[in-house]
Amino acid sequence: MNVVILLYEGFTTLDATGPCEVLSRLPNARVQLVSKQGGPCQADLPSVSLGTEPLEAAAAPDVIVVPGGTFTQRHLGDDALLSWLREAHANSTWTTSVCTGSLLLGAAGLLEGRRATSHWYELESLRCFGAEPVSERVVEDGTVVTAAGVSAGIDMAFMIGERIAGAEYMKSVQLVTEYEPEPRYDCGSTASAPPELVEDVRRIMRSGYGPNWAEQGCRA
Amino acid sequence: MNVVILLYEGFTTLDATGPCEVLSRLPNARVQLVSKQGGPCQADLPSVSLGTEPLEAAAAPDVIVVPGGTFTQRHLGDDALLSWLREAHANSTWTTSVCTGSLLLGAAGLLEGRRATSHWYELESLRCFGAEPVSERVVEDGTVVTAAGVSAGIDMAFMIGERIAGAEYMKSVQLVTEYEPEPRYDCGSTASAPPELVEDVRRIMRSGYGPNWAEQGCRA
Repeated sequence: MNVVILLYEGFTTLDATGPCEVLSRLPNARVQLVSKQGGPCQADLPSVSLGTEPLEAAAAPDVIVVPGGTFTQRHLGDDALLSWLREAHANSTWTTSVCTGSLLLGAAGLLEGRRATSHWYELESLRCFGAEPVSERVVEDGTVVTAAGVSAGIDMAFMIGERIAGAEYMKSVQLVTEYEPEPRYDCGSTASAPPELVEDVRRIMRSGYGPNWAEQGCRA
Repeated sequence: MNVVILLYEGFTTLDATGPCEVLSRLPNARVQLVSKQGGPCQADLPSVSLGTEPLEAAAAPDVIVVPGGTFTQRHLGDDALLSWLREAHANSTWTTSVCTGSLLLGAAGLLEGRRATSHWYELESLRCFGAEPVSERVVEDGTVVTAAGVSAGIDMAFMIGERIAGAEYMKSVQLVTEYEPEPRYDCGSTASAPPELVEDVRRIMRSGYGPNWAEQGCRA
């Protein structure tokens, strides 16, 4: 069972490592981290880089994971990444994304006519790719499963894991990883957070991350 | 605000990257990943390595994070690691661990007489170091904060974050990271999991990870 996690400069660490931690525990899982050039791939944190193999070394994936990141938008015109994604998706069992990783699935043409999600800040941008934005934590449409922002990748991985290895098996993974979260506040989604907080964070993201893809007219 | 995450061969990816993702978002946070030799540090997953700086390059940490791992036990006699930990702890604001990382805090002598936690499989082993094992997700005793297994590091980081930056700030971090978990099952701790599942997983861990430190008479 080949799991291939597609990294690129500026990915968000937890988007990639959350699913990695869960999916690597599936029976006979072989997880690969790959990037276009291979070698250390810089996250969107200056101090974090993950070792990767080059795209050519990627096994034919049963599960593809595309993380999001602060700099995902810069890669939406990267033909090498996008054509690898299209080919890999043609034979994958599951093609998944976390956070703004769904923009890459969209740019590769894989979300046309599908229900999908993303980080809430980029959710409406999915329309740029012919997708129907859905404000849920994990959205399944055919073989494509998209997750909301950052930490949602962990829940996505448990969902995929259940389809692959069954609920009983995944319960053991949940106990081993002590996945019994205790979030301190009730504001982890735009539905639960107070509107002022959403607006504050939207303003912060606009200055840090930049305008979302839709606001840019669906192009750089 | 210097956050130093101490890696070693065989650490668990999410133990390190969960807190990294949260703490890096604190105001003026400078996060460093360090290891004894520096360079790529191999996780307990064959495919995962994180770039690190050598111990000598570590800034004086305000926050120390020690992840656990499948191979933590191998490092409990590592004088270079342990003396770095002791010195860093002497001036840190917070000294923290995730999962079996608390064994390293214990081996460095930092848990003597303290309440602390660990992965449930190693919880009783904390007695080897004069600590009082506490079966809670995050345990604070003075400047030492220990977290339970793997995913608990995220909650630990939010707790530390609140002390450093305040609850209002951390609410924005929770919304940005969409930390509104939806675990599929109610079995993420030994308290919630059915006893048969705990025994099954204990058996699996005994064969994979090996006996816990207490069962080995508190030595290799």
